[in-house]
Amino acid sequence: MQRYKLILAYDGTLFHGFQKQPNQRTIQGVIEDALLKMTKGKHVIVHGSGRTDAGVHAKGQVIHFDYPGNVIPAKNMLLALNALMPRDIIFLDSELVNDDFHVQYSTKAKWYRYIINQSRFTDPFRRNYTGHCPYKLDMLKMKKAATYLLGKHDFTSFAASGGQIVDKVRTIFYINLEQNGDEIVLDVIGDGFLYNMVRIITGLLIDIGHGQKDVEDVEKIILAKDRQKARNTAPASGLYLYHVFYDDLPKKYNLIAKRD
Amino acid sequence: MQRYKLILAYDGTLFHGFQKQPNQRTIQGVIEDALLKMTKGKHVIVHGSGRTDAGVHAKGQVIHFDYPGNVIPAKNMLLALNALMPRDIIFLDSELVNDDFHVQYSTKAKWYRYIINQSRFTDPFRRNYTGHCPYKLDMLKMKKAATYLLGKHDFTSFAASGGQIVDKVRTIFYINLEQNGDEIVLDVIGDGFLYNMVRIITGLLIDIGHGQKDVEDVEKIILAKDRQKARNTAPASGLYLYHVFYDDLPKKYNLIAKRD
Repeated sequence: MQRYKLILAYDGTLFHGFQKQPNQRTIQGVIEDALLKMTKGKHVIVHGSGRTDAGVHAKGQVIHFDYPGNVIPAKNMLLALNALMPRDIIFLDSELVNDDFHVQYSTKAKWYRYIINQSRFTDPFRRNYTGHCPYKLDMLKMKKAATYLLGKHDFTSFAASGGQIVDKVRTIFYINLEQNGDEIVLDVIGDGFLYNMVRIITGLLIDIGHGQKDVEDVEKIILAKDRQKARNTAPASGLYLYHVFYDDLPKKYNLIAKRD
Repeated sequence: MQRYKLILAYDGTLFHGFQKQPNQRTIQGVIEDALLKMTKGKHVIVHGSGRTDAGVHAKGQVIHFDYPGNVIPAKNMLLALNALMPRDIIFLDSELVNDDFHVQYSTKAKWYRYIINQSRFTDPFRRNYTGHCPYKLDMLKMKKAATYLLGKHDFTSFAASGGQIVDKVRTIFYINLEQNGDEIVLDVIGDGFLYNMVRIITGLLIDIGHGQKDVEDVEKIILAKDRQKARNTAPASGLYLYHVFYDDLPKKYNLIAKRD
């Protein structure tokens, strides 16, 4: 029995999210089916660093599993799994880890990216890979509003119902918006995220950029601890689980440490 | 009755090509169905500048049709059709044209683009939008080989069987290869293209870049007038109908005029 940690990317368009569900095509399900072939029938449970919803993508999802039988070198595990993957999943890196490593509990921080497409009509080539917003958005206001989200807050107002988590205090270490042609790239790094939190943050920043809400509303919405205040959830297609940190967050991504 | 000329882009992934076929989702079929709604049941035939195969994309396909009844301003036609389109087709421009304009016969030149992805494994996010080739390719050799294709040639060796065209003499005005990150972008502009011609040209250039064939083989293959000589056809997913010229080709795209 050997524990493996693997990094993978996937196009979430044709998956019903990460978590295995009966009769649905999911990331976990596809990987467990591949492992079942490799073990000739021994079921291996795949653990993810976190779930991604239907349509949400990953550039750097991380999984671990305990592989029974003889130890396979990490590189061979990578090649074997890639040979069994459909074209919308790819393993990027693989390593052997100790039994005390846990892909979910060992995380130091997670990085999500949201891409907003600003073309007038939905771009056929970007429809599955961005959230579309044709309105002119005020980047300065959005950047200013984003700084209010930095730090340790109770993010109850930014959690969709359905989550079972009681403690809704999270810390955002880094948040940044960049214009890239007709797209806006939002990066958020935090110690953890509530259900739909990044998509709700994106929805709020869009409302502010569009003038539907004010920069100053961010603090009020955080303090209200009321999901009804933030309102809009940006579509799944624009969201990427970009990177999971298992070592200390590099200083350049810790804007709070800089600020304090 | 008024003739309309429209420019459109589409993600060809989920279409069985441009041309209407029974029980298949096609570009022509989807547009004709939309026009049927607008005319309340009068069938309007959509003419394309040329067909694209299943999986082939367009950034600048052009169509024309004769719309019965009252004249609708070009801009309104654009908006009305976009409102009826699925998310993988978008109309970019619309104009009223005279009856002597024909989207196929009035063309001066066509521009195709092929994108080769060079990542080690198939990139989940580029799998439908590029042709994947993990081998190291020699760009200098490919560029040199491409120059042999410039000009007026009998392209019989570059035509897939299935076409009904007898005269296989075509003129390539412009051909260029550019590295763009881990992708190679091939642009080809000509007065017309035979069935699969750009995909066969791409396949040959890849073979040359990979050392399977020599730069000098290009002339031999052209002279052989034998489809068996070029061999490989690059996958549909990397091909884009990029632009159709109805006015004289701008001088910068006419490398033959420069050369002679």
